[in-house]
Amino acid sequence: MNDTFFLKGNICHTPVKDRLDVHEGAYLLCEDGRCGGIFDAPPPALRAVPVLDYGDCLILPGMVDLHIHASQFAYRGTGMDEQLLEWLQKYTFPEESRYADPAYAERAYRIFADAMDKSATTRAAVFGTIHRDATLCLMDFLEGTGIISYVGKVNMDRDAPPALTEKDADSSAFDTFGFVNAAHKRGYRRTMPILTPRFIPTCSDELLSALSEVRRAYDLPVQSHLSENPEEVMLIKLLMPEAAFYGDGYDRFGLFGGDARTIMAHCVYSSAEEIARIRERGVWIAHCPASNMNLASGIAPIRKYVDGGLRVGLGSDVAGGQTESMFRAMTDAIQVSKLYWRYHDHSARPLSFSESFYLATKGGGSFFGQVGSFEEGFEFDAVVLDDSLAPHPQPLTLQDRVERAVYLGLDRGGIREKFIRGVKRGLDAGTS
Amino acid sequence: MNDTFFLKGNICHTPVKDRLDVHEGAYLLCEDGRCGGIFDAPPPALRAVPVLDYGDCLILPGMVDLHIHASQFAYRGTGMDEQLLEWLQKYTFPEESRYADPAYAERAYRIFADAMDKSATTRAAVFGTIHRDATLCLMDFLEGTGIISYVGKVNMDRDAPPALTEKDADSSAFDTFGFVNAAHKRGYRRTMPILTPRFIPTCSDELLSALSEVRRAYDLPVQSHLSENPEEVMLIKLLMPEAAFYGDGYDRFGLFGGDARTIMAHCVYSSAEEIARIRERGVWIAHCPASNMNLASGIAPIRKYVDGGLRVGLGSDVAGGQTESMFRAMTDAIQVSKLYWRYHDHSARPLSFSESFYLATKGGGSFFGQVGSFEEGFEFDAVVLDDSLAPHPQPLTLQDRVERAVYLGLDRGGIREKFIRGVKRGLDAGTS
Repeated sequence: MNDTFFLKGNICHTPVKDRLDVHEGAYLLCEDGRCGGIFDAPPPALRAVPVLDYGDCLILPGMVDLHIHASQFAYRGTGMDEQLLEWLQKYTFPEESRYADPAYAERAYRIFADAMDKSATTRAAVFGTIHRDATLCLMDFLEGTGIISYVGKVNMDRDAPPALTEKDADSSAFDTFGFVNAAHKRGYRRTMPILTPRFIPTCSDELLSALSEVRRAYDLPVQSHLSENPEEVMLIKLLMPEAAFYGDGYDRFGLFGGDARTIMAHCVYSSAEEIARIRERGVWIAHCPASNMNLASGIAPIRKYVDGGLRVGLGSDVAGGQTESMFRAMTDAIQVSKLYWRYHDHSARPLSFSESFYLATKGGGSFFGQVGSFEEGFEFDAVVLDDSLAPHPQPLTLQDRVERAVYLGLDRGGIREKFIRGVKRGLDAGTS
Repeated sequence: MNDTFFLKGNICHTPVKDRLDVHEGAYLLCEDGRCGGIFDAPPPALRAVPVLDYGDCLILPGMVDLHIHASQFAYRGTGMDEQLLEWLQKYTFPEESRYADPAYAERAYRIFADAMDKSATTRAAVFGTIHRDATLCLMDFLEGTGIISYVGKVNMDRDAPPALTEKDADSSAFDTFGFVNAAHKRGYRRTMPILTPRFIPTCSDELLSALSEVRRAYDLPVQSHLSENPEEVMLIKLLMPEAAFYGDGYDRFGLFGGDARTIMAHCVYSSAEEIARIRERGVWIAHCPASNMNLASGIAPIRKYVDGGLRVGLGSDVAGGQTESMFRAMTDAIQVSKLYWRYHDHSARPLSFSESFYLATKGGGSFFGQVGSFEEGFEFDAVVLDDSLAPHPQPLTLQDRVERAVYLGLDRGGIREKFIRGVKRGLDAGTS
């Protein structure tokens, strides 16, 4: 499979954010896992290339989820009555404590991986728990789905229940070292470790410093949380008074972009200084609108980020967000941007559909390289979507069909096939 | 069917809004279309009553959709880039014009009715178009689903495209008279006409006055739109300067509660005077959170309405809202109430899950009588939901299961059976 073939169908993507580019009944070339171009008909030189004909289906880039907690998937859609800090104590930490038990981890992560496999997501940045073995088990399952992911063993050495507090900074860092080594030894082809200090409230300065060393040794990327909730932002000022702002608290330890490729989730309350630093360091922002509603956090100033040329993708943030669906994340992002415009900043034009689509594909995809679009040379991640399960009495343009499929959540039930780096879902990449 | 039986399963409802009441593995008695009580085991006197055993399924009251436009269903999930008045001109009116063609109406309404049939909705207040025959066709289809509904032929005699503007007030009113007569003649058992002036911008004073006469003659209920969008509210001041506020514009013509049982959709920008009048006249508010996000209208002050003891239900408002799912409406209502608290009024506590569930069932149900709860004497509308399609590794309480089913939208794919006034979906009520 992972050689040369065409997908035939209605090819839709967003090379630029202002327009959904559509090609009706066109041919999308895959060559060794990369996009080789979009053609109205196979060029003469490529006549022998096999064609996988998906008829009237929509062919979209795979979705990129820049922020999801695998260990929270089990209780998604419950416990939506608290804000962040209380929610962590009441629902999240008790559930994450269960992953000390390998049998539980296996049972829970199997369910998570199965859901991800069925989703439109082809790339993800994933949080596990503090537990090394459980997180390796998660990586085993994700590798099996074909999804390309970064997975982090979480670090926490303070301000959590005893069962979730690692002994001290050194032991947390050393365990992370062991986790990274073990992950490398397992020889995954699609599943990579990422440094995952939970957030500053649960990470001492000593821990951040030690992690910084681990990071440099293995050139690891980083994922964490930033400026999600007003109380959280206040707490940082108490916990780390020497930091100029929340993000500076990571940056002081070399865990905020620059050499350290970094995703920061949320950025709802980032100050002008923090935003300037995010831009300067090239940090990716994972915008998580559902979570920011469910935990009453607020609405991130996404227009400012998008127009300011920052690196932005979308995150489902299960279980702050209730679903792994990136189609849902797209429409949530649009909807909250309309309320932000209405209630907070009348100069902040709401996100358009194509902008949101761009964020969910090419925006987040850039964290993984040339990913999230069908431009030539991009890695070949594609989702084949059958939208005929939602009948309609009138003609629809392809643009309408894509918008409708996303708003109606046809990623549930409508995904007919998924290709990741040119490999069909379910097939092993071993033949490459 | 429509006689005496038990449903066995996990029975969950909200007799009061502050608590989801659950009964594990219990027996819910149906007697002649009404609830006869919830029992741990069949009482001795009722041992001969047949039991429909739904095992571990959830048994919930049927959902009540207080505001949905059947004629907009075809383009739901598309065209989400405009505010109300522009959206009507650009998307809604062109689509509604198609319903002049009976063949189109039949095709489109068949799709709508099929979707409603598959949904968790058992009661609905539905907008058609200005077209009498098309709206009767819609009623035929809805009658076939078993759903109990009010359906309105829309009235508009100004400020719309020519194809959607009725000739004048008298002809619009006379056509409505004909519509009501025809509906009565068809002998529906579950489908009733409702007076449906679209909103004041498209209804002249003469039309409202003439409709008031039709209303009184047939004792019709009324549905319309109120204070949805700031520009719309401004427009009313220009169009009807003598009205003290938007709702007064309806009230001056006897179309605002009191004798006229009335649903007003939205009420996002209702003034204190308007709210007082809504309470005084006992008008039902249809809160439509998805629509209010999609059209960037804003967020209705739902806490004020709920705590103030107003009559409130939820509406999907397709196609301002993108989906007919009332599960989705429930979670949207909670989510926007959190943003309202965060950005607009820190004294307005967000909706709890049980409050939102109450609005979607008993709150809206009260428009239909004793509907939306399993209390004794209430009409027997029940949905049997199999939530096992979303596996989980840990124990869940019944409360968690209901919240999860709603947040995950398990109304799609999870509905195993639906009973309306004691009649099983798909069975005709003829035996009653």
